[in-house]
Amino acid sequence: MPALSHRITTLNGDGSDGWDVFYRARAMIDAGTPVTELTIGEHDIRTDPSILKAMYESAVGGHTGYAIVPGISALRDEVAARVEAQSGVPTRRENVLITPGGQAGLFAAHMAVCGPGDVALYIDPYYATYPGVVRSAGAVPRAVPTRSSQGFLPQRDVLEAASDGAVSLLINTPNNPTGAVYPRDTLEGIADVVTERDMWLISDEVYDTQVWEGAHLSPRALPGMAERTLVIGSMSKSHAMTGSRIGWIVGPEEVITCLVDLATNTTYGVPGYIQDAALFGLRAGAELEAQVAAPFLRRRAIAERVLAGQQAVRMIPAQGAMYVMLDVRATGMSGEEFAFALLDAHHIAVMPGESFGQSAAGHVRVAKTLEDSRFEAALRTLCAFAAGLAQAA
Amino acid sequence: MPALSHRITTLNGDGSDGWDVFYRARAMIDAGTPVTELTIGEHDIRTDPSILKAMYESAVGGHTGYAIVPGISALRDEVAARVEAQSGVPTRRENVLITPGGQAGLFAAHMAVCGPGDVALYIDPYYATYPGVVRSAGAVPRAVPTRSSQGFLPQRDVLEAASDGAVSLLINTPNNPTGAVYPRDTLEGIADVVTERDMWLISDEVYDTQVWEGAHLSPRALPGMAERTLVIGSMSKSHAMTGSRIGWIVGPEEVITCLVDLATNTTYGVPGYIQDAALFGLRAGAELEAQVAAPFLRRRAIAERVLAGQQAVRMIPAQGAMYVMLDVRATGMSGEEFAFALLDAHHIAVMPGESFGQSAAGHVRVAKTLEDSRFEAALRTLCAFAAGLAQAA
Repeated sequence: MPALSHRITTLNGDGSDGWDVFYRARAMIDAGTPVTELTIGEHDIRTDPSILKAMYESAVGGHTGYAIVPGISALRDEVAARVEAQSGVPTRRENVLITPGGQAGLFAAHMAVCGPGDVALYIDPYYATYPGVVRSAGAVPRAVPTRSSQGFLPQRDVLEAASDGAVSLLINTPNNPTGAVYPRDTLEGIADVVTERDMWLISDEVYDTQVWEGAHLSPRALPGMAERTLVIGSMSKSHAMTGSRIGWIVGPEEVITCLVDLATNTTYGVPGYIQDAALFGLRAGAELEAQVAAPFLRRRAIAERVLAGQQAVRMIPAQGAMYVMLDVRATGMSGEEFAFALLDAHHIAVMPGESFGQSAAGHVRVAKTLEDSRFEAALRTLCAFAAGLAQAA
Repeated sequence: MPALSHRITTLNGDGSDGWDVFYRARAMIDAGTPVTELTIGEHDIRTDPSILKAMYESAVGGHTGYAIVPGISALRDEVAARVEAQSGVPTRRENVLITPGGQAGLFAAHMAVCGPGDVALYIDPYYATYPGVVRSAGAVPRAVPTRSSQGFLPQRDVLEAASDGAVSLLINTPNNPTGAVYPRDTLEGIADVVTERDMWLISDEVYDTQVWEGAHLSPRALPGMAERTLVIGSMSKSHAMTGSRIGWIVGPEEVITCLVDLATNTTYGVPGYIQDAALFGLRAGAELEAQVAAPFLRRRAIAERVLAGQQAVRMIPAQGAMYVMLDVRATGMSGEEFAFALLDAHHIAVMPGESFGQSAAGHVRVAKTLEDSRFEAALRTLCAFAAGLAQAA
């Protein structure tokens, strides 16, 4: 076999991929042991039947040939109108590229702004694929650490110190895994730094419909930022369409034009009938989105109630998204040790904070993706387990 | 606006994208002028309703969440069995990655084997995106010319001369745009050269069900080639599923493992319900494939009959795929001049050979994607038009 490219053999960096607890849980399930899974960000509801019906009608109606690469005009217009209404930033069809999912959007955005060997920043803790996305684009990922005690919000001095030679910064608000929703002053600090350093800001806003406290603010709306911000959006979280792989990039028209060329070579567009389904979903309006988001708001209240009654586990304020981040350092264990111990003792699977970067060490992320009463029971078991460990520690 | 990456601003090389005739035809249609379009490789039939029904049943049945990134096991197994039956090469699930279309497969394959600045070869004439695919992967495209008088088959000495410093060669049989089906000795010559030079062979076989003369031979089946060949397949042409964006890469397990990591960062998989639709389509067997291919076989006979009755246009033997390549040099015009003149005079749109590389200069590609009688009439008009020009030339 001839050699492979250096890039593709080093995508995972030099560490584990952080998914060992998840894999052990799946192996237990495969071996017949029931496991309460609170690991991945997958809704416990499915895509609404009305959206699937719209998709089928489009396909049967003949929309099965190549769709134009930038995305169908009606969907680009709808996304533009949505983004403009949400952010106040004038946005037209030419600012929008439809992508086969938010992940493809993250990758394409980095391909557009990072050359080989360029440094691309991301905030730690981070969604699991971020460093790999940067490496896939041939660039060098550099983490910007945050602190649990500061709600995992990036601090301006830390960001400045990390920015030397960087061409881009990737942020995510509402945040996975921490649940943070970046306030205006945090975003203004970020905007100042990326402007001073003439960097791109890549803003992953796929959780923008899941805000439980405060309001979602897109950094593209800050003064001067529209010309240096690429926003990643998706139907996955807002409409429970994770498996449909449809999302978008919003940015300056010159960048979108280049990204259409890239998409011609790398994906050749997105199925037309899925675009029609997404269009139907977006036009269904806020009610459907609220319905998809509601379970996570309910379970946030459950988590707050359960956590308030104990001392061993501290909950990071969960302002948005579909997870709660729990500080388990009182147990004397790392997040990974705790997660493995909990899985072995009680067959409950949660993600170690370390899976999302060193800033989340000593934490675990709990996905709110189980029916309310089972979610509450699992959280109570987790807290009691932590209390026992903390007492022994 | 900060700078964009050099890679993304140079994707199109320094020439036109070769689609000016196509765009003018579309502009005429938009302005209300009917145009007979024989340009792009889109079937004049749609995806079979049984496949769409299978897709809908999968979606309504709940397959709307994340599908696993390598592809669902049943589809990987089915593709492996199909490739093994066709080629005789032992092929397992671990040799198969499901991709969001053949285009994504071409890109991922080059990402796997080419590093920044590496030279990647492709045969001229070529499918329009090939050089851009190579550039998207950060590599440098280098064309290997062929000759109309040799049926556009690559010649060993020419390939050897082009191979210095190259890491990969991309071939396509049955070929778009030429209709050539590479015979065994051509493929053996290619295999010898890539083996001597320790290069990868990327084999685009998306037209493998459209063979009108001889038989399709996958170069992966030649001795020693399975370890250095990545085969790109797709449902687009074989099952009229162009818009569904589903295909695959078949190759050594080590490469597929790396490509799964890449897919995790760049696409995060393919919709599960589309994978179920593809599985249904493949299991429907040869009859459905023959039904999808039949119009192109019929229209090939029409083209041979029409072309036999005249002198001004020479037809390249169309052994496979859904096009005929016509030599119009007797008119004294370039392919592009002829295509524009035909569009203006008769509102018939064909692709200039130059759109597919300099080796096809003085030719036009005619897609067999119109109902038989209209196809025949358009060809007759084209020939009469060429005869008039040839007489004047």
